[in-house]
Amino acid sequence: MNKGLFITVEGPEGAGKTTIIQLIAEELQTEGYSVILTREPGGIPIAEKIRNIILDKAHTEMDPKTEALLYAAARRQHLVQKVVPALEKGDIVLCDRFIDASIVYQGYARKIGVEEVLAINEFAVENTMPNLTLYFDIEPEIGLARIKKNRSSEVNRLDLEGLSFHKLVREGYLTLAEQFPNRIKKIDANQTVEEVKKAAKAYIMDCVQKR
Amino acid sequence: MNKGLFITVEGPEGAGKTTIIQLIAEELQTEGYSVILTREPGGIPIAEKIRNIILDKAHTEMDPKTEALLYAAARRQHLVQKVVPALEKGDIVLCDRFIDASIVYQGYARKIGVEEVLAINEFAVENTMPNLTLYFDIEPEIGLARIKKNRSSEVNRLDLEGLSFHKLVREGYLTLAEQFPNRIKKIDANQTVEEVKKAAKAYIMDCVQKR
Repeated sequence: MNKGLFITVEGPEGAGKTTIIQLIAEELQTEGYSVILTREPGGIPIAEKIRNIILDKAHTEMDPKTEALLYAAARRQHLVQKVVPALEKGDIVLCDRFIDASIVYQGYARKIGVEEVLAINEFAVENTMPNLTLYFDIEPEIGLARIKKNRSSEVNRLDLEGLSFHKLVREGYLTLAEQFPNRIKKIDANQTVEEVKKAAKAYIMDCVQKR
Repeated sequence: MNKGLFITVEGPEGAGKTTIIQLIAEELQTEGYSVILTREPGGIPIAEKIRNIILDKAHTEMDPKTEALLYAAARRQHLVQKVVPALEKGDIVLCDRFIDASIVYQGYARKIGVEEVLAINEFAVENTMPNLTLYFDIEPEIGLARIKKNRSSEVNRLDLEGLSFHKLVREGYLTLAEQFPNRIKKIDANQTVEEVKKAAKAYIMDCVQKR
């Protein structure tokens, strides 16, 4: 139904995904494709306000399930107001994290339950699932070291989780990638930026050509 | 597990439920029971902020599913921070509207889907379902006329929905009451306040005595 392509990128912090999809978005635009690069809450006022509630440091009593429902609500609004209209116009939408991040971080690593987090997110996204998901795989030790080196000034709450949490995140992503091999493509993020970008671009172009 | 009793009251605006459970809460307190009377968001700051997003008149682009997820999030937080601790202390918790309101108003009357709205709410409430739900039944024409008469100064957004919407709400509640006859007790709200209160109190005392 949608003429566009919906591509999401996933992976732990430190895998380089944000840098690489920025480079790819620019390349695709240069090549004449109509591309939007986004991430939740994506400048949608309702979704921004939901995200402010999630991130407010005063909310120490936030229950993990409340948080999961709020993420799903923000995802829904961003999808309806920004992603779907772009797909209907025929754009390539590159989205930095989407449904898999909730499944892995909240369902798997925080142990709320994969099936349950999947269910509320399916309610939120309905049939607008990504055509392609690039999972940037990296060992937590290496990813964390990169974060520490590159941006010690703006370490966020998730960066501060222990190594065991980040190992669970990787396990969760690897499990998902095995479950959905057609949609999720694993890329070895241990390579150079140029190599990772090349691998990612190849998957994207394959998807573009099959459109 | 919980020593307390969780009792919810449901019904359209104009059925008199709020007035009546206030009277019953006072009576039960006079009789020596430890009672809390609450309604979502119940003074829980996180839930209040979520509700502010839902009710903000500027949010004309709010998607119905975003709204349903936000209600479920506020419900979860109110439940975890206020209802469950009271139940664990052994209190009788009287809550003005709960899960059934979402199923009926959003799932049934707004047509998002009963099963789907139920599923995200089950995620939110887990096994903390009410021991008893009192459904105050009234014909929409009569309920709406009461609202108009009693509080024309503070008519809310739902009051302004057309008669056909309120008929769907009643249909939804009646269907639920048939589906869950053990939990949901229907009370004819066409009677006098004294009669309705007596019927409601009888169901509550039956539940208290079986505790």
